[in-house]
Amino acid sequence: MSEERVATVRPMSEDEATGRVADIFDDIRRTKGIDFVPVFWRTLAIHPHQLEMVWSNLKQWMHPEAVGRTPRLDARTREIIALAVSATNGCAYCVNSHTAALRKLGVDDETLGEVMSITGLFNMTNALADGYQIEPDVRPPLGE
Amino acid sequence: MSEERVATVRPMSEDEATGRVADIFDDIRRTKGIDFVPVFWRTLAIHPHQLEMVWSNLKQWMHPEAVGRTPRLDARTREIIALAVSATNGCAYCVNSHTAALRKLGVDDETLGEVMSITGLFNMTNALADGYQIEPDVRPPLGE
Amino acid sequence: MSEERVATVRPMSEDEATGRVADIFDDIRRTKGIDFVPVFWRTLAIHPHQLEMVWSNLKQWMHPEAVGRTPRLDARTREIIALAVSATNGCAYCVNSHTAALRKLGVDDETLGEVMSITGLFNMTNALADGYQIEPDVRPPLGE
Amino acid sequence: MSEERVATVRPMSEDEATGRVADIFDDIRRTKGIDFVPVFWRTLAIHPHQLEMVWSNLKQWMHPEAVGRTPRLDARTREIIALAVSATNGCAYCVNSHTAALRKLGVDDETLGEVMSITGLFNMTNALADGYQIEPDVRPPLGE
Amino acid sequence: MSEERVATVRPMSEDEATGRVADIFDDIRRTKGIDFVPVFWRTLAIHPHQLEMVWSNLKQWMHPEAVGRTPRLDARTREIIALAVSATNGCAYCVNSHTAALRKLGVDDETLGEVMSITGLFNMTNALADGYQIEPDVRPPLGE
Amino acid sequence: MSEERVATVRPMSEDEATGRVADIFDDIRRTKGIDFVPVFWRTLAIHPHQLEMVWSNLKQWMHPEAVGRTPRLDARTREIIALAVSATNGCAYCVNSHTAALRKLGVDDETLGEVMSITGLFNMTNALADGYQIEPDVRPPLGE
Repeated sequence: MSEERVATVRPMSEDEATGRVADIFDDIRRTKGIDFVPVFWRTLAIHPHQLEMVWSNLKQWMHPEAVGRTPRLDARTREIIALAVSATNGCAYCVNSHTAALRKLGVDDETLGEVMSITGLFNMTNALADGYQIEPDVRPPLGE
Repeated sequence: MSEERVATVRPMSEDEATGRVADIFDDIRRTKGIDFVPVFWRTLAIHPHQLEMVWSNLKQWMHPEAVGRTPRLDARTREIIALAVSATNGCAYCVNSHTAALRKLGVDDETLGEVMSITGLFNMTNALADGYQIEPDVRPPLGE
Repeated sequence: MSEERVATVRPMSEDEATGRVADIFDDIRRTKGIDFVPVFWRTLAIHPHQLEMVWSNLKQWMHPEAVGRTPRLDARTREIIALAVSATNGCAYCVNSHTAALRKLGVDDETLGEVMSITGLFNMTNALADGYQIEPDVRPPLGE
Repeated sequence: MSEERVATVRPMSEDEATGRVADIFDDIRRTKGIDFVPVFWRTLAIHPHQLEMVWSNLKQWMHPEAVGRTPRLDARTREIIALAVSATNGCAYCVNSHTAALRKLGVDDETLGEVMSITGLFNMTNALADGYQIEPDVRPPLGE
Repeated sequence: MSEERVATVRPMSEDEATGRVADIFDDIRRTKGIDFVPVFWRTLAIHPHQLEMVWSNLKQWMHPEAVGRTPRLDARTREIIALAVSATNGCAYCVNSHTAALRKLGVDDETLGEVMSITGLFNMTNALADGYQIEPDVRPPLGE
Repeated sequence: MSEERVATVRPMSEDEATGRVADIFDDIRRTKGIDFVPVFWRTLAIHPHQLEMVWSNLKQWMHPEAVGRTPRLDARTREIIALAVSATNGCAYCVNSHTAALRKLGVDDETLGEVMSITGLFNMTNALADGYQIEPDVRPPLGE
C-alpha cells in the first residue's frame, strides 16, 4: 500500500466485483460510455446498497435518457450545477471530476471562467445577505 | 421600527440616495427593468464603495449585454448557478430572490425540481467523496 | 396565500396526489407510522421522480426493516447523524425535524446536550485543522 | 524543512514541551492510551491556552470516564458524530483521524458505509429543504 | 407555549438555575456587564457540562482580562472575527449577537460595511481557489 | 505536465500576458510590492473580465491606499478576517496565502493562535445556535 494513499477505505477493484455490484459496474461503464469504473463508485461498493442508491440517483438526474426520461436541463447545464456545488463545498475530487466532464462536453476556458465567476459572485452575495440578515423583498411567485 | 425586523442595519431608502449611490440605484432599476431597488442593494448602500463593487461585479456576470459583453451562458443557466450555490449555502434571501428570477424567466416546477435534485445529489456526493477522502482518477484535461 | 409563506414552491396537498405520487405518500405514512405526509415530501412531489429518488434513499437508510435490510446502526444513532449534519449545515427545517424524531425515540435533554456538544466540538476542531492546514499523522487503517 | 510541508505553523515536538504543555501532552498520551502526541495537539501548543481549551473540551466529551462523567452516548456513537461532521465540512485531517478511531473501535466497511450513506443523504436533504425554503410542519416537542 | 417558538429545547430560566449553573449565570452577567443571561447560555444549561465548557472557552478568548490573560487582539478585532465566521456560516442568532456587540463597541455603518465587504470578498475567492483547485505558490513562512 | 498537477486550468504565464491582462499583472506586482504574479491571479486570467472584477474588488478592500480610500480597518485586521473566513471554509490555497500575509505583517504564533482559537470557538457556537435553533434575545441596534 503506497504511503501516498489518502482514501480511508480500499476501493473494490473491478475484478473483485460479483453479483449486483458487477451489474452496476457494467451499467456505469455502459451508461457513461467509458471503459473503467471510476474510483468513486469502486469506493461506494464497500456497501452494495450504498453503490446502488447513489448510482440510481445519479443515473436518474445525470443520464436521463438511460432511464427514459426527457430532461428539462441539457448535459452541460447539469454538469455546471455539479461544478458550482462542488466549488462551493470545496470538494477536490468532485471539482476535478466535473471539470473533466465539462471539458469532454467541449467547454472552453472562457465558459469555465463564466461558471466560476458566477459561482464566486454568489458565494459573496450569500455571505453579505446572511451577514446583514437581509429580509426578502417579496416571496417568489409559486409555480402554477 | 417593527418588532419583526431581522436585518442588522437600516437599509437606505430610495429617497435618501444622493450622488454616486443615486446613480447606482438608477442603474439597478434600469438594468433589471424594475421600478424599485431591492433591499439587498439598499442595505449595501451603507458603504457606497461596497454597493459599487458588488453591483459592478453582478452587472458584469448577470447582465452582460448591459456592459457590452457576449456571454457564453444564457440568463436561465446563470440564475440556475445562483440558486444552486444559494441552496448549498442555505441563504434564505438568495434562494427567494433567485427562485423569483427563475420564475420570471418562465421556469416551471418540473425544471425547478431538476435543478434542486441535481443540487441535492451533488451535496450528497461531495460529502461522500470528502468523507472517504477519495483520490482523483485522473486530472481533468487542461483547456486548449 | 398567506403572507407568512416562505417556501418557494406550493407543496402538493395529500388530496391532489394521484398515481405514483399517491403510492409514495401512502408508503411514507405507513413506513413512518404517521397519519399525514410531512411538507418536505409534499414539496418534493412537484417533480415525482425527485420524490421517488429521495424517498427510496431515505427509506433504505432510515427505515431498513421496511426494505428487509439488517442495519448496523440503530434508529437513535441514525437520527443523531441526521441532527449532527443538519446542525453543521444550519438547516432549520432539518434540525426541527430530526430533533422531533429524537424526542419521539425518547432522547432527553442530557443526551441531546451531548449530541450538540460533540457536534459543536468537531466544528471547532475542523476549523482548527483546516486553519493550520495540519497534515495527517498516519493514514487510517483500511478495512479488512 | 520538507518542500512537502503543508501546515502553516511548526508543530511543537514532544521534546520541546515544558510546564503546562508537557503536562497536557502526558494527559493526552495517557487518556488516549497512545505513545505519541498527534500533530493536531502539537500544533495547538503554539498557544498553550489554546491547547488547554481544546483538550479540556475534547476530554470532557470524548473521554468522559477520564473526567468522572457517565456519558449517554457510547464511544462508537461519539466518533460517528465526529466523522459525520468532518465529512460534511470536508476536513481531511479530521476525516482521517476519526475514521482511524472508528477502525480501532472495530467498525467494519459495512458500518462505515452506513455512516457515510446517512451523512450523504442528509447533506442532500439539507440542500433540498434550504433550496425550497420549506417551513417546519410542527415544532419539535420540548424536553420534559 | 407560543406558536412562534423556534428553539428545539426549552431554555432554562434564570430563576431555575441552582448550584454550578447559577454560579456560571452569575459569572456571565458579571463578566459581560449585563443584567440578564442571554438565551444562548440558558439553552446550553440543559447540560451543565456543556454550559461550562462553552463558557470557559468563550471567557478565555473573548474576556481575557477576566482570566488574567493579556490578549494580542483587542475586543473589536475579536468581535469582527466572530461576525466574519457567523456570516460565512449563515448563523442568524450569531450574526445578530455579534453585530449587537460591535455596535456596543462603537462600530459604525462604514466600519461594518468594510467587515462585511471583506468577508464577502473572501467567500468569493475561496470558491474560486477551490473551484479551480489552485495550488499554493509557496508555503507560508513558519513562525520563529 | 507534471503528474502532481492539481489545478484544473493552465494558469497564464506572466510572459503570455498582453493588453489589459498585462496591465493588471503590473498593477498586482506594484500594488502588492512583489516581483511575481501569484498563481491565483494567473489562473483567473483565463477570462480577463474575471481577473479584472476580482482584482478591482480585492484592491478596493485590501489595498485601500492604492485607490485613495481611508480604511476603517488596518491591514492586520483585514488579513485576519481573510484567514478566519478561509479556515471556516477550509480553503487550503487561501489559508496558506493569508497566513503568509499575516507573517509578513509580523504576526507571531501567539497572535495566530488567538485568531485561530476565536475562529474555532465561533464555528462551535454557530453549530450550537443553529443546532438548537436559538432565537435572538434582541435585535442589534441599527446604526445611527
